[in-house]
Amino acid sequence: MIYFDNAATTVPSKSAIDKAIEFNNDKFYNPSTLYNGGLNCAKEIKCAKDSILRCLGAISNDYEVIFTSCGSESDNQAIFCTVKRGIFVTDKGEHSAVHKSFLELKNRGLSVEFIDLNKDGSVNTERLYDFIEKNSGVSFVSIMHVNNETGAINDVNTIADRIKKINPSIIFHVDGVQAYAKLPYRLSNKIDLYSISAHKINGIKGVGALIKRKKLNVSPLIFGGGQENGLRSGTENVFGIKVFQYATEERALSLKENYKKVQEIKEFIAENLDKDVFTVLSSIDSSISSPYILSVSAKGLRGEVLMHLLEMENILVGNGSACSSKNRFSRVLTACGYDEKILDGVLRISFSPNSTMQEAEIAVKIINEKAKKLKETMR
Amino acid sequence: MIYFDNAATTVPSKSAIDKAIEFNNDKFYNPSTLYNGGLNCAKEIKCAKDSILRCLGAISNDYEVIFTSCGSESDNQAIFCTVKRGIFVTDKGEHSAVHKSFLELKNRGLSVEFIDLNKDGSVNTERLYDFIEKNSGVSFVSIMHVNNETGAINDVNTIADRIKKINPSIIFHVDGVQAYAKLPYRLSNKIDLYSISAHKINGIKGVGALIKRKKLNVSPLIFGGGQENGLRSGTENVFGIKVFQYATEERALSLKENYKKVQEIKEFIAENLDKDVFTVLSSIDSSISSPYILSVSAKGLRGEVLMHLLEMENILVGNGSACSSKNRFSRVLTACGYDEKILDGVLRISFSPNSTMQEAEIAVKIINEKAKKLKETMR
Repeated sequence: MIYFDNAATTVPSKSAIDKAIEFNNDKFYNPSTLYNGGLNCAKEIKCAKDSILRCLGAISNDYEVIFTSCGSESDNQAIFCTVKRGIFVTDKGEHSAVHKSFLELKNRGLSVEFIDLNKDGSVNTERLYDFIEKNSGVSFVSIMHVNNETGAINDVNTIADRIKKINPSIIFHVDGVQAYAKLPYRLSNKIDLYSISAHKINGIKGVGALIKRKKLNVSPLIFGGGQENGLRSGTENVFGIKVFQYATEERALSLKENYKKVQEIKEFIAENLDKDVFTVLSSIDSSISSPYILSVSAKGLRGEVLMHLLEMENILVGNGSACSSKNRFSRVLTACGYDEKILDGVLRISFSPNSTMQEAEIAVKIINEKAKKLKETMR
Repeated sequence: MIYFDNAATTVPSKSAIDKAIEFNNDKFYNPSTLYNGGLNCAKEIKCAKDSILRCLGAISNDYEVIFTSCGSESDNQAIFCTVKRGIFVTDKGEHSAVHKSFLELKNRGLSVEFIDLNKDGSVNTERLYDFIEKNSGVSFVSIMHVNNETGAINDVNTIADRIKKINPSIIFHVDGVQAYAKLPYRLSNKIDLYSISAHKINGIKGVGALIKRKKLNVSPLIFGGGQENGLRSGTENVFGIKVFQYATEERALSLKENYKKVQEIKEFIAENLDKDVFTVLSSIDSSISSPYILSVSAKGLRGEVLMHLLEMENILVGNGSACSSKNRFSRVLTACGYDEKILDGVLRISFSPNSTMQEAEIAVKIINEKAKKLKETMR
């Protein structure tokens, strides 16, 4: 089995799970209890937070980590629980967790603006800055770090600088789910909120985090026992949090090698896909596109059909975002300006540090064969 | 180690985890993907829902299950995402997840009412019905099934009948976290929403569910990819959900034996605690108090000190709710009408099917010894 759908989810790290498994066995305590077992669990959570901040090059004097149940919850809390008025700005390339939250803001009568994309899926920053300059009422901006469909990188640190220069009172949120522990990156202190998710980096599903500037007031999305410094109630998922920590540490330790390796794989596939069939949508320049994501289109073919043909050969790739797999055309790629023939044929090929060049060679060969055959049957 | 703090959390079932572990290994897929691995994960989630409904004697024509990240999230969604106006009614004995959510409703300008408790921690139903009769604007009522501090059972099916007879348009929510898979119980079709949590029944932390009447409109608390029938976005925690299913099935299979066994343990401890020191706060009548929870008070002593003395003997008990462990006096027991001397000395002893009579015998002996010594040092 060649698994090239790592932007949808990754296989949990066995070593991270093995290290964390004690929190489902003899260290299973509720971190809110006052005996040693519980207090130790609380300390272990603190330790996981430090690890995450270290991975982002962030200082624990400036930032704090709120553990949540997923990247979507982190995005929702950032969007619904910081600013209550003004104009909310995002771009047309965001993950559903941000996009649908913005539609909900609109439902609730708030002003929202979706900024256009460049062809590669990055935000059109000229339009973004222009909008903020012309609208002094902008209170909140949310721009993703890496586009989950195209891999396009938004230079969020520079965007943060520019936004804050235009209007220092704006709260700036970044969905970093597809960037965290993948791109070499140091969190700018001009970014107020940063969302991450465990299962995209070989952690397990059910854990995410919202990193916030300490001085920023955030209210809870979930009220109750006051866990997570009063900002996220519910008994902490200690096991999941520890797996997240260990997966983070594993990624951080070889972040640069991983980065180089997947970039080679991405380049190899992009170069060797049959050019008569495939249009490469992602840039292969790693300064503007994540090496972990390669979006291509078998123009005129149905990506979903091709995906199933590949599945029969034990090659798993995605077609667009898993989280909006029920729609025929990708909302995001449509916003990039592609025509229907391109949109129909989209495949998202995405990697993890476990991916190998050998897998890439096999995959390219079979993808080319299957696409060619499919094309012939269409004539 | 004798672990008698099972109302705070339980040790995850090894057999349930072993059965579910494949969802962290070769079945790790994202349930939203369209290839077989993903589609199978989606089916497995459906299967877990059926199991939970079966355990509640509920029919899948009437009810649906929304998987959430915890009992608190379930309570929050029930409270914030069904009714937007009218008077919200609860009682003074609720878990923080309900209590704090009601305070937040009040913050937002909505009308809320907290109904008084009986001495045992159950809601004073006369006052509840009276309030609803006198206030036709009541739109939402939330009453817990089993009080997490005293174990008092609210007869929620009868309460549902009476409430709906007075005003059929009221939405009735039940926090069933301490009742689910513990009490023999069949969900009444007059109950609109019922919250449960996995880690209280030997599942793992990070998974809960909100069971809702199919015909009831509930909006999402977390927006995004539209998972859970559009009602709860975020990649599903398949592993945690499957552990929840298997833990449910294990509990359901021997629910009545477990019930009988923990009742015997509870009675034994209640009867054999030194009556010169301890006041038993929970009823030992299992028709009005859960066999899984025994609340007692070492009147005039500090419960927390006693708890630590017991910890040194490898006996773990709670002092009040883990989720409000930071306050000296329990909000709930205060509302029951106990004086400060009783409130100060509270211990919550809570059981699981793993608890044994032998543990109870050892625990009682040591609890009596330690309390007696502590009392002597206070003279």
